[in-house]
Amino acid sequence: MSDLPSHIEIFEEGPREGFQIEAGPIASADKIALIDALSGTGIRHIQICSFVSPRLVPGWADAEAVAAGFTPKPGVAYNALWFNEAGLKRALAFRDRLSMTGSISLAASEAFSRRNLNRDRAGNIEAMRRQTAAHLAAGIPVGRVGVMAAFGCNFAGDITPEQVVQTVADGLAIAAEHGQAIHDLSLADTMGWATPARIERVVGAVRGRWPELALRLHLHDTRGLGIANAMAGLRLGVARYDSTVGGLGGCPFAAHKGAPGNIATEELVLLCEEMGIATGIDADALIAAGHLAERIVGHTLPSAALRGGSLAAFRARAA
Amino acid sequence: MSDLPSHIEIFEEGPREGFQIEAGPIASADKIALIDALSGTGIRHIQICSFVSPRLVPGWADAEAVAAGFTPKPGVAYNALWFNEAGLKRALAFRDRLSMTGSISLAASEAFSRRNLNRDRAGNIEAMRRQTAAHLAAGIPVGRVGVMAAFGCNFAGDITPEQVVQTVADGLAIAAEHGQAIHDLSLADTMGWATPARIERVVGAVRGRWPELALRLHLHDTRGLGIANAMAGLRLGVARYDSTVGGLGGCPFAAHKGAPGNIATEELVLLCEEMGIATGIDADALIAAGHLAERIVGHTLPSAALRGGSLAAFRARAA
Repeated sequence: MSDLPSHIEIFEEGPREGFQIEAGPIASADKIALIDALSGTGIRHIQICSFVSPRLVPGWADAEAVAAGFTPKPGVAYNALWFNEAGLKRALAFRDRLSMTGSISLAASEAFSRRNLNRDRAGNIEAMRRQTAAHLAAGIPVGRVGVMAAFGCNFAGDITPEQVVQTVADGLAIAAEHGQAIHDLSLADTMGWATPARIERVVGAVRGRWPELALRLHLHDTRGLGIANAMAGLRLGVARYDSTVGGLGGCPFAAHKGAPGNIATEELVLLCEEMGIATGIDADALIAAGHLAERIVGHTLPSAALRGGSLAAFRARAA
Repeated sequence: MSDLPSHIEIFEEGPREGFQIEAGPIASADKIALIDALSGTGIRHIQICSFVSPRLVPGWADAEAVAAGFTPKPGVAYNALWFNEAGLKRALAFRDRLSMTGSISLAASEAFSRRNLNRDRAGNIEAMRRQTAAHLAAGIPVGRVGVMAAFGCNFAGDITPEQVVQTVADGLAIAAEHGQAIHDLSLADTMGWATPARIERVVGAVRGRWPELALRLHLHDTRGLGIANAMAGLRLGVARYDSTVGGLGGCPFAAHKGAPGNIATEELVLLCEEMGIATGIDADALIAAGHLAERIVGHTLPSAALRGGSLAAFRARAA
C-alpha cells in the first residue's frame, strides 16, 4: 500500500448538508453549536451554510444568522455554498469570516444537467462562464472545478472515464478563458454509483491527462460502498475528501428513500488514523460532535462509527 | 487490481445471527420464510439456526422446528451452529437436511477466550481436542479452523499477525492429531478492529506460512469499515466471505450498543457484481429478502444497500 498518503485533508460538509435536508426546522443556535463543536475537533475546513433561495431550501433561510453567529477558530477555513449571483452577493457580506473561492461546477452526465439544472452541456458551460465572471468582478478567485455524476448517473446510467475527462476539460477551459488557475479538482459520486474499480479508472484517466492537479473525492454511501471507495482513493494517493459528521445529509434522490448521503467523517477518520494516515482530527471529539448532531436532528444518523466508537479506550484499558 | 477473484462464495449467516440477537420472539414460520427466500436468491450456503441452550439463547429455543421446517433447495448447503456435544447431538437429528462439518474454533486473543469462554489458551485447545474427537465419533469430519479476534480485541487491544499464525498452528495441530484435513480457514474480526492494512498483514502472514489453505473472512461492520475490509480481502484474492442479509445480527458487545454486526450480504454482492466478480446471487432478489427480514424483525436493518437499491433498474431505464 505504498501510495497511501501520509496525511489527508477532510472537508467537513455536515452542517450545510445536514441542515438542508432535515424535515423539521433546526434552530440557528443549534447549527452554530455544531459548527463550533466541529472546529474543536481538529477539522480545518467546515462548510457552514448555503446561500440559497429560502423558498427552495427552507432549511437555510437563516444562512445569515449562522454565518454571523459561529466563533471563528484560527487555522480553520469556513466556507459556504451558493449557486448564483444572488447567493454570491449574500455570501460576500461575510467575506471577512468566510474562506471564499469560486467553483466551476459541471456534470459528467448531460441527462443529469438537464434534469437537475434544466441546462444542456452547452447551457451549463455558458452559465459557468457567467458565474466565473461574476466572481472575478467581485474580487473572488475561481480555483476549483467540480464534476458531478463522475462515476455513474441515475438518468444516464454508466459514465465513462472519457466523459469525465471531457467535463474536466470543459471546466479548465472556462477557468483558462478567465485567467484562473485551478488548484482543486473535485470528482463527485453524486448518486452513489462508484466502486473501487470505477474510482481507479476515473482517477487514472484524469491523472493521466492532468497529473499536476490535486484531486478531491466527494463520495456518497448510498449503497454502503462509500468507505471502500475512499480507501480506493487513498491507495491512489488522493489526499482530499469531502464528508459529513455522522453521515449527516441523506440522499436527496427519491429512488433512494432513507439511504445515506455523504460518507461519515468519523468513519473516514478511523479508517485513516488506524492505518497511520494523519487527519489532524481527534476521533473521539468528532464522535462526540456526531452525537451532538444526532441530538440536534432528533434521530440517529447512518454512521456505524458513532455506535462502534473509536479503539482508543479499548487500547488504553488493555495496556 | 489483478488479484481480484473471478468469483466468490458467500456464506449467509443472517437467519442464525439475526434471530439470535433480536429482542422479541420471532415465529418459527418467519424464520423459515426468510431461509426459503434466501435460497431463492442464488445463495449457496445458509446458516439456518443455532443448537444452543434455550436458557442462554432464548431466540433459538425453536432450532429443531426451523431445521425441520425449511424447504431444502438442491444446490444449497444448509448448516447450523453448535458449541458442545449437546448441541452436536441435537444437530445430528437433522444430518439428512444439514451440511455437517466440525470446526475447531480458537481465539487469537487469550483475554477474549478467558472473558467469553472462561478458558485460557491451553484450556481452549483441550476443549477443541475433545470436541474434535466427539465429531469424529459421530462420523462428522472436522474440516475447518476458525480464529476469533484475529484483527484486534476489546480486552487485549491490538493482535499481532504472529499471534494469529500461532493460533492457526494450534488449530491445525489439533486437526492433524486426529487425522483431519483442514480445507477452510476462517479469520474473524469479532470485535470490529480490522482495517484494510490489518487485513493485508494478517492474510499475508497466514498465507506465507500455509499458502495452500483456502481463507475465509468473517467481517464485522462495527465502525463502518467492513466493506472496505472485504475489498482488501478481494484484492488479495480471498474468495470466501461470511455475511448477513440486511446486516442482520448487530454487535453483541455492550460497548458498541446499536452498532452493526456482520457486513451486509447485499452490500458485498453489489461491491462484487459491480466490479465483475461473480457471486451467483441475484442482488434484487437478495434486497427483497432483506426487506422481508426487516418486516420480520420489525425495524430497519443497518444495510445502506437495502435503501440505495441495486443499479439494475437505473441502467435499464437509461438504456
